[in-house]
Amino acid sequence: MPDNSSYKIPVEIPGLKFYHHPAPFLQESGAALPGPTIAYHTYGQLNAEKTNVIWVCHALTANSNVADWWSGLFGPGNVFDPEKYFIVCANILGSCYGTTGPRSTNPENGEPYGIDFPHFTIRDMVNAHELLRRHLSIEEIHLCIGGSCGGHQVMEFAYLLPEKIKNIALLVTSARETAWAIAGHEAQRMAIQADPTWQENRDDAGKNGLKAARGMALLGYRTFASYVERQTDEEEKTYNLKAASYIQYQGLKLERRFYAHSYWHLTKSLDTHNIGRGRGGAPRALSQLKMPALVISIDSDLLIPPVEQRFLAMHLPNSTYHEISSGFGHDGFLIETEQIRMSVGNWLDG
Amino acid sequence: MPDNSSYKIPVEIPGLKFYHHPAPFLQESGAALPGPTIAYHTYGQLNAEKTNVIWVCHALTANSNVADWWSGLFGPGNVFDPEKYFIVCANILGSCYGTTGPRSTNPENGEPYGIDFPHFTIRDMVNAHELLRRHLSIEEIHLCIGGSCGGHQVMEFAYLLPEKIKNIALLVTSARETAWAIAGHEAQRMAIQADPTWQENRDDAGKNGLKAARGMALLGYRTFASYVERQTDEEEKTYNLKAASYIQYQGLKLERRFYAHSYWHLTKSLDTHNIGRGRGGAPRALSQLKMPALVISIDSDLLIPPVEQRFLAMHLPNSTYHEISSGFGHDGFLIETEQIRMSVGNWLDG
Repeated sequence: MPDNSSYKIPVEIPGLKFYHHPAPFLQESGAALPGPTIAYHTYGQLNAEKTNVIWVCHALTANSNVADWWSGLFGPGNVFDPEKYFIVCANILGSCYGTTGPRSTNPENGEPYGIDFPHFTIRDMVNAHELLRRHLSIEEIHLCIGGSCGGHQVMEFAYLLPEKIKNIALLVTSARETAWAIAGHEAQRMAIQADPTWQENRDDAGKNGLKAARGMALLGYRTFASYVERQTDEEEKTYNLKAASYIQYQGLKLERRFYAHSYWHLTKSLDTHNIGRGRGGAPRALSQLKMPALVISIDSDLLIPPVEQRFLAMHLPNSTYHEISSGFGHDGFLIETEQIRMSVGNWLDG
Repeated sequence: MPDNSSYKIPVEIPGLKFYHHPAPFLQESGAALPGPTIAYHTYGQLNAEKTNVIWVCHALTANSNVADWWSGLFGPGNVFDPEKYFIVCANILGSCYGTTGPRSTNPENGEPYGIDFPHFTIRDMVNAHELLRRHLSIEEIHLCIGGSCGGHQVMEFAYLLPEKIKNIALLVTSARETAWAIAGHEAQRMAIQADPTWQENRDDAGKNGLKAARGMALLGYRTFASYVERQTDEEEKTYNLKAASYIQYQGLKLERRFYAHSYWHLTKSLDTHNIGRGRGGAPRALSQLKMPALVISIDSDLLIPPVEQRFLAMHLPNSTYHEISSGFGHDGFLIETEQIRMSVGNWLDG
């Protein structure tokens, strides 16, 4: 299938498919994107009833190739079993892995939108997913699952399709974006904005700011103990320290695979997350999600700690709560796949 | 006393005194600063024996006016009682509140050192304090006390003057800078360096980077719960969020009272901290500090958590350990002055 996204994807992602929506896409802000593209992956076959679907929602800087970044959940007999399920993952709106975002060409002027891309919300992301669901003629989603910002999308998707989504699994997520996370995003955006090239309309605009933003974000993804254990110098050095090199390296790695304009907009979008917004508050909105819901915490998560998931479990009417023990903090949702496999598998079977 | 520092201090600090050292100051790096200035405050009177001294070491962006930033510990009958003690606090090397630092004039070319200021260590900071101690003819320090980076200095000062320093109080500090703290500093420096003006030789060089760095640092100074409690929007907004405004405001506040070149260098200096460097490791170095030592933790400290202070208490041969309960995280050492007053007071009396 041809790549009909309008920008160069920063890294090669095998197996990408594209849906080009033939009509304008109205966002919550009132802005309309003309004919958005949604990039996605599928694995396995849709059954005749079009109901054997697992829909995975990815997090901030990931992409639709879930078999790559959540490989520990894939395979025969595992949660994501392509022999049994039709597994779908779509790149989120505003990203840079094929779906329309700030580096897409604005048909009005033939230039990339750049930093002027219209603001979008988590609900807009989910409404874009919904275009793809219809395109794929999916009637039912057996399981909708995601961690972190992916979890934000899962709960919004479930709110949008309360009859069609049969089970939801929410990992290390929250009913609304917390002040703690918003504060971190703002500091990260300030780092991008400290790099004056962020205002230019180029793929590498704001790249030094993006590196710093990633360095900041990484601290929230892991834990004090994990840094001390892995990044402490054995020699008694005063400069060129291991922890500093690690942050530099991680910043560079993201800079090579992401665009600062996408990062900036995606964090803005995260900040809009509130399942209860315009719906009488979070407890009331969550009470509408009557399907079985598995809520997974990681005990060492500094970014979206277990208190947030306990809130979800308390207000979701049909919830199961499971706290995973891990030294990896928030990133544990990508790493502790053995525990997640057991937790999700047992819950789905039981 | 005239201001003989060579740069404009960004904010007015009443009561500053200056000592201009009449000889070069050799740093650990081998670089020599010609005739450094040390800015300081004193409160109360030195007794005839020159032994009634409390020496306070300040943290990263503070200044020598300890009666201002640690006011809760000041006053008659309190820990810092000017009727009883001669209280000294000196601005640290590399800062911008009067002591020689990156914005000082390099006598070799008549220009501010700027970002090329020679690298310095915590031991260099303490060696600069020692110049002032001699200048003030202080024979004994009854109590040397400091929190965070101030604590780093206290333990180095005690190592330098094991006979003259009679008691030490170490708050929210560590035997060596942790990989976690170093990683955070590196991300903050990357934010400063993302602002290309940081390479210019001006007081406001790197100011947008500095704002972002401060925004990031703030997260480590408080806690998840404190942000959620204080910075959550009551309205259901999607933009102009309270937590983001708070970070912007705090970044701006620091930018108005600090120089990015000082901030950059001071974090580099923090990263060099290791009481055991060149001394057979931290346990061995700490075993040399035989004076009574009070070690204070704050239970919610994310930046330098209690595990670090328990290490200090375990290896200091004459230690008392006290963990303070606080919702303020690392910043609690500046806020929980009632608990600190009780803890330090009881320990000194007992």
